[in-house]
Amino acid sequence: MEFLVHIEQDISPDMDPERLAAVKAAEKVRGRELVEQGKMRRIWRTPGRRAVTALYEVEGPDALHDILSSLPLFPWMDIEVVPLGAHALDPSQATAGR
Amino acid sequence: MEFLVHIEQDISPDMDPERLAAVKAAEKVRGRELVEQGKMRRIWRTPGRRAVTALYEVEGPDALHDILSSLPLFPWMDIEVVPLGAHALDPSQATAGR
Amino acid sequence: MEFLVHIEQDISPDMDPERLAAVKAAEKVRGRELVEQGKMRRIWRTPGRRAVTALYEVEGPDALHDILSSLPLFPWMDIEVVPLGAHALDPSQATAGR
Amino acid sequence: MEFLVHIEQDISPDMDPERLAAVKAAEKVRGRELVEQGKMRRIWRTPGRRAVTALYEVEGPDALHDILSSLPLFPWMDIEVVPLGAHALDPSQATAGR
Amino acid sequence: MEFLVHIEQDISPDMDPERLAAVKAAEKVRGRELVEQGKMRRIWRTPGRRAVTALYEVEGPDALHDILSSLPLFPWMDIEVVPLGAHALDPSQATAGR
Amino acid sequence: MEFLVHIEQDISPDMDPERLAAVKAAEKVRGRELVEQGKMRRIWRTPGRRAVTALYEVEGPDALHDILSSLPLFPWMDIEVVPLGAHALDPSQATAGR
Amino acid sequence: MEFLVHIEQDISPDMDPERLAAVKAAEKVRGRELVEQGKMRRIWRTPGRRAVTALYEVEGPDALHDILSSLPLFPWMDIEVVPLGAHALDPSQATAGR
Amino acid sequence: MEFLVHIEQDISPDMDPERLAAVKAAEKVRGRELVEQGKMRRIWRTPGRRAVTALYEVEGPDALHDILSSLPLFPWMDIEVVPLGAHALDPSQATAGR
Amino acid sequence: MEFLVHIEQDISPDMDPERLAAVKAAEKVRGRELVEQGKMRRIWRTPGRRAVTALYEVEGPDALHDILSSLPLFPWMDIEVVPLGAHALDPSQATAGR
Amino acid sequence: MEFLVHIEQDISPDMDPERLAAVKAAEKVRGRELVEQGKMRRIWRTPGRRAVTALYEVEGPDALHDILSSLPLFPWMDIEVVPLGAHALDPSQATAGR
Repeated sequence: MEFLVHIEQDISPDMDPERLAAVKAAEKVRGRELVEQGKMRRIWRTPGRRAVTALYEVEGPDALHDILSSLPLFPWMDIEVVPLGAHALDPSQATAGR
Repeated sequence: MEFLVHIEQDISPDMDPERLAAVKAAEKVRGRELVEQGKMRRIWRTPGRRAVTALYEVEGPDALHDILSSLPLFPWMDIEVVPLGAHALDPSQATAGR
Repeated sequence: MEFLVHIEQDISPDMDPERLAAVKAAEKVRGRELVEQGKMRRIWRTPGRRAVTALYEVEGPDALHDILSSLPLFPWMDIEVVPLGAHALDPSQATAGR
Repeated sequence: MEFLVHIEQDISPDMDPERLAAVKAAEKVRGRELVEQGKMRRIWRTPGRRAVTALYEVEGPDALHDILSSLPLFPWMDIEVVPLGAHALDPSQATAGR
Repeated sequence: MEFLVHIEQDISPDMDPERLAAVKAAEKVRGRELVEQGKMRRIWRTPGRRAVTALYEVEGPDALHDILSSLPLFPWMDIEVVPLGAHALDPSQATAGR
Repeated sequence: MEFLVHIEQDISPDMDPERLAAVKAAEKVRGRELVEQGKMRRIWRTPGRRAVTALYEVEGPDALHDILSSLPLFPWMDIEVVPLGAHALDPSQATAGR
Repeated sequence: MEFLVHIEQDISPDMDPERLAAVKAAEKVRGRELVEQGKMRRIWRTPGRRAVTALYEVEGPDALHDILSSLPLFPWMDIEVVPLGAHALDPSQATAGR
Repeated sequence: MEFLVHIEQDISPDMDPERLAAVKAAEKVRGRELVEQGKMRRIWRTPGRRAVTALYEVEGPDALHDILSSLPLFPWMDIEVVPLGAHALDPSQATAGR
Repeated sequence: MEFLVHIEQDISPDMDPERLAAVKAAEKVRGRELVEQGKMRRIWRTPGRRAVTALYEVEGPDALHDILSSLPLFPWMDIEVVPLGAHALDPSQATAGR
Repeated sequence: MEFLVHIEQDISPDMDPERLAAVKAAEKVRGRELVEQGKMRRIWRTPGRRAVTALYEVEGPDALHDILSSLPLFPWMDIEVVPLGAHALDPSQATAGR
């Protein structure tokens, strides 16, 4: 199942810079894992904001929640999850059955 | 450039069925062309709604507008365009320069 | 997978009464089928509105969309689909694995 | 009477971890009580958020408020209560009178 | 149980005046019945709008829905129902048990 | 003149418990005075929230503001005031002139 | 009592021009009356919209509703009424008691 | 040029009372100046809120911004500015040219 | 004075094509006049929508309203006007006094 | 490519004045650079708010994000980016090809 995931980060300008750097570094490592595992298929930045949109392919909403709540920045994130349905015209439908 | 495009269709239940069928058939043909041209990279249905989310890769906002306003169902569509920025973790960044 | 489905009906007071009665009767029949098939687990009326909230248990978002778009009143419906994740405290978790 | 209850938790990332763990443990105990008493019939997680949707069956809005305001996490919760009306197609109507 | 009920009427300026007058007259009669039955305890006009706020005292959400959907103007109404809980300071609590 | 008054309290979970208890006790005393003076005619709790809806009968908006800003919890309140107009069907119109 | 009144007109581009001209002429006449009676103290146009903001001074919300619902364009208007309270700095307070 | 200015104050209940009193006193002085200079023509309180609506007559948006940002409470204010256009029915149009 | 003007067109898919073509042609002519007169300084299309954003430089809100309400498509437009203030960093400030 | 950029600053009234002055001075320097580089074509103040609207001309969304996230006040900014499409009537189209 595919989900579109919109994430806004809400980080205080007064957050301790070292703590922030450590959390961001951990976030990067976790992000790379999710890419390597084929869970996070695409990720884009929202221009001008501390925000991203990502395309996840996972087994279902529970697997997705486990992933998102495992993100080191999760406590500072406001996340909206959008379920995606298959469309007959989708290019990925042509080659795979899913 | 990539854009996320959210489309809601607003079609009256009283629309002439033949006209609707004709427009939908034309929409399908145009959709296939956009896939074949590599403009429409992905398209998903919003479950429960006459709505889709699509991922476009085009030269810029003007090319995108030309495409969207060429859709046979355009007069019945409410469209929201979201510009997407590159993200360092994006899998497609690893293999291509864009 | 379970989904919460909010449905608002938008029916013109000028709709032909016979046509409306026929569509409503067909809707009732389809609703009973969905209950018997175990797809629609619960359905509640929103007091004071032509609206319902329903709990569906289906294979995934595509199966849900097929069901919802098969409803005779679908062209008059505004539908919002909410994906539900499992919670450790949920009573239905105690007895089943899902 | 049945109510749908949407709960969003707003917990600061800077909250003392021990205090948070204690409140969460108490919340779990209280949640189990409500399940055993048959008050909380279902509970689902909102994927990607510190949020849940729950189905309560209680005597009325006053009993519901007493329950919700007794939750250990209540001071950190933003709660929306939706009253539910009976629907003729509801499976639970077939077997019970309520 | 008490409920606050907000009603907005959406009547086209092109509605046939005789039909409108007939429906309004029937609405008045039904409104008086509800007052006499002690169901509609208070009703106020929203200044400047075709809208009212009413205080209903009924057995529960199902009884309320039956009443509201029986209103002759129901097909032209957009209704929002707000459940009300008892408050220790409420004057009506002092004299009655409810 | 009658007004519907919606009040949401925004009290930090970190507020000093003694201070909170003192302000709440003062709030209760002030509330009783307003009931005894016939200013606050009804008050209901919003189930699941630190919120109330109240029906005030006062000379006008200035008298209402004086009352609301005199509430001990006023600095923690978000208040919305809704002016109410007389309706021909209102039961209180039958017996009084106002 | 003073009220700020926001009025948006929703007139179909297909409305019969003669009917529209007649209603607008009647609206103008009624507007002048309200100015002469000292009820409508100020009126401003919202640039770019078929909308106005007006300052009314009337006995109360019921008098205001009678005035607004007497406007020939009332069936095409969406009106929002904002009650205004006296402010110690207001210039009109200096010279009059109101 | 006239502008309608809506101001909401967001003052923490924990703000130092002396500092608050000093800022409020300065605000009052500045307000009186603006009245005497004929810049602030009217000001009303929003009942139940720390909010006001004011009518300003100034040379243009830049003069208005200079005035508003000079208010001692400006750092605690959320301000919305609404430009006003002349209306043929406005009483002040009859006697002055503006 | 400069204003940012957001315009959404709401044209029914059932509008007579000849009438639409005539109004659009007239709109184009009027648009060119406004550019030649230096009133409309910039205009951009909103990708994917029948909508534009324009930058106007006019004497004030009344001149702007006269221009916008003179547009042939005005009856089908929903317009939002945003007043703009001068900013010290603006490049156009460097060379002109305005 | 051109973008309209709306920026709201959220600066606490309790921020250290020296720190604020330093950040604002750095912001001014960076702003001038962006003007000199021809990236920031126009900038306007939103009257009454700590907010600006700016017109940027940059290579694309990634270049824009790099610029905006380089602003010294970025951690205190809430930014909305609006992509702009070319319009046939735009004066700048007449003289340049872009």
